[in-house]
Amino acid sequence: MTRDTIPGLGDMQDLISTEIERWLSSCERDPLAPVHRWGLSPRGKLLRPVLVLQSAATVSGPREQVLPRGQLLPVAVGIELAHVASLAHDDVIDGDAMRRGRASVPSRFGTAHAVLGGDALFFALVQSLAVCHQHGATAEAVVEAVRIVGDSGRDLSAGVAMELMLSGCGQGLPFGGASGTTAYVEMVRLKTAALMSGACQIGAVLVGGCPQEVAALGKFGEALGIAFQIGDDLLPYEPGPISAAKPVDSDLRNLRPALPLMLAVDSANPLDRTRLASGDMRWDEVRALVRDSGAVLRARELRDEYVGRALTALNALPATEHRRHLAALVDYALGGG
Amino acid sequence: MTRDTIPGLGDMQDLISTEIERWLSSCERDPLAPVHRWGLSPRGKLLRPVLVLQSAATVSGPREQVLPRGQLLPVAVGIELAHVASLAHDDVIDGDAMRRGRASVPSRFGTAHAVLGGDALFFALVQSLAVCHQHGATAEAVVEAVRIVGDSGRDLSAGVAMELMLSGCGQGLPFGGASGTTAYVEMVRLKTAALMSGACQIGAVLVGGCPQEVAALGKFGEALGIAFQIGDDLLPYEPGPISAAKPVDSDLRNLRPALPLMLAVDSANPLDRTRLASGDMRWDEVRALVRDSGAVLRARELRDEYVGRALTALNALPATEHRRHLAALVDYALGGG
Repeated sequence: MTRDTIPGLGDMQDLISTEIERWLSSCERDPLAPVHRWGLSPRGKLLRPVLVLQSAATVSGPREQVLPRGQLLPVAVGIELAHVASLAHDDVIDGDAMRRGRASVPSRFGTAHAVLGGDALFFALVQSLAVCHQHGATAEAVVEAVRIVGDSGRDLSAGVAMELMLSGCGQGLPFGGASGTTAYVEMVRLKTAALMSGACQIGAVLVGGCPQEVAALGKFGEALGIAFQIGDDLLPYEPGPISAAKPVDSDLRNLRPALPLMLAVDSANPLDRTRLASGDMRWDEVRALVRDSGAVLRARELRDEYVGRALTALNALPATEHRRHLAALVDYALGGG
Repeated sequence: MTRDTIPGLGDMQDLISTEIERWLSSCERDPLAPVHRWGLSPRGKLLRPVLVLQSAATVSGPREQVLPRGQLLPVAVGIELAHVASLAHDDVIDGDAMRRGRASVPSRFGTAHAVLGGDALFFALVQSLAVCHQHGATAEAVVEAVRIVGDSGRDLSAGVAMELMLSGCGQGLPFGGASGTTAYVEMVRLKTAALMSGACQIGAVLVGGCPQEVAALGKFGEALGIAFQIGDDLLPYEPGPISAAKPVDSDLRNLRPALPLMLAVDSANPLDRTRLASGDMRWDEVRALVRDSGAVLRARELRDEYVGRALTALNALPATEHRRHLAALVDYALGGG
């Protein structure tokens, strides 16, 4: 699914991209400006800001009550800035040299600037919430958005910390089996899905969505985020050439709990398990082992379960064209394109 | 000056400390809880949260309009959490193994947990702003506090980035002389004073202080912060034993632009200048060179100038006992005790 198959998506991404450029221009005198510019290029799908805007469109009532969509742009971009911040910090944590097909922020600017650049982008999200009020969102709605941002950010950090705990191919912690999958889903809910859920809720809250609508969009974003992360974990095992966007061996090198690997470790014989846990298996061997174990199929099943949950959550919302576009974003998000 | 010489200060610090303990208890199931507990012990002077509460007391009008001080405790603690976050990230950036007399967060838990723990604490500040509204602050006031927090956080990151630019004893960048001092003051205004100024403004805003009062307290906090950082830079050169709280050679090892060192480099002969810039001078030699150059006296003069500015800023506020307590906090903050 490309951006052309969802009406208005391309325009929305262009608007967001222009707003990012405006934001970058506003911080040209900031010593961190080159770091921010690097982290924000290339742009990617801009999934999280699109979720903010599309969620707002989905719940908005009579037109006169609704903020023009452009007035949500600063906070939509703020969510993308926080996402890029978390990527820079992740790359510090994982020691990853590549991101989106080129040098990662810490690889290009060093650890210090990657830490600081990320911190600044988190606070830029906070700034964008206040800007939203200047642009017409009610103070009550902004405060509720502040609560959601605070909670999502705490979840994000806790999720990455949980990932570190689960790293090491199950040495001393639940890894495979049912308890392993439960732990994986909880980790992914925190580290990936919380910000997507937050993006959907913020969009709804800021245009005055009712609590039921906000809750439904929160569930939608959470299930989408879990499905998205499983899809991301599956990428290195899909047929065809391996993507150059991120080193496929990063999860392996860091013994991270990626779902296919976790499931394969669970069903591997003791020798393979030991070799996997030691991290000294060649990548093509790992790939063959994971595929042959049936782990890829099982991971796809779990991904599709969460896709189903995301679509079901949307049933609580008015059946408009905007709701259909939101549903179409699930395919787009998981399309890897 | 000890905490006993300012009426009510000890009680205020005890209240803040109890609220920190309550906050720590609330995140016991968070995988980052041990990191947070370590970073928040020992407590230090709790200067920033005291500034929040004392600023609120200074501007508060008729009693019925004023939030009970206890209701500002979550955001006062939130400011301390963000401060502790910045210390953990600073220790990652500087590679410092010691902080407040024991292992720094990255030294105790590793870089990954120091980065994540800091991120979580920044978002805990965001959460505390929303809590404040539940406790009775108006939504409008909270949104204004959100703006101040966003701006202060951006300044903080930019200030540390500027410090990195100025590091290296002036090789290729303004270091000594008038332009060096101007750059130093700007760096310190961003990296240290912005959060103190923000703490004062937030306290005032949340209890409904008028714009003039908020501005005066912002100026007070900014001047206090600059004086405080110069005092901190002076600590290793003061008579008596060197404090064990932070390795005194950290600034030197990282060639950081601490004011006495900058001023001494400016007046040093070419040989000493080269040796300082190479970072291979022994600590006792550096100390003697800086003292003998007159740099300590000049740094003290600049510190005292900013103390004067802080006290002058208070003149715009009602001449109450609370204003006197705020003035007394300047001595307390700079007392090193």
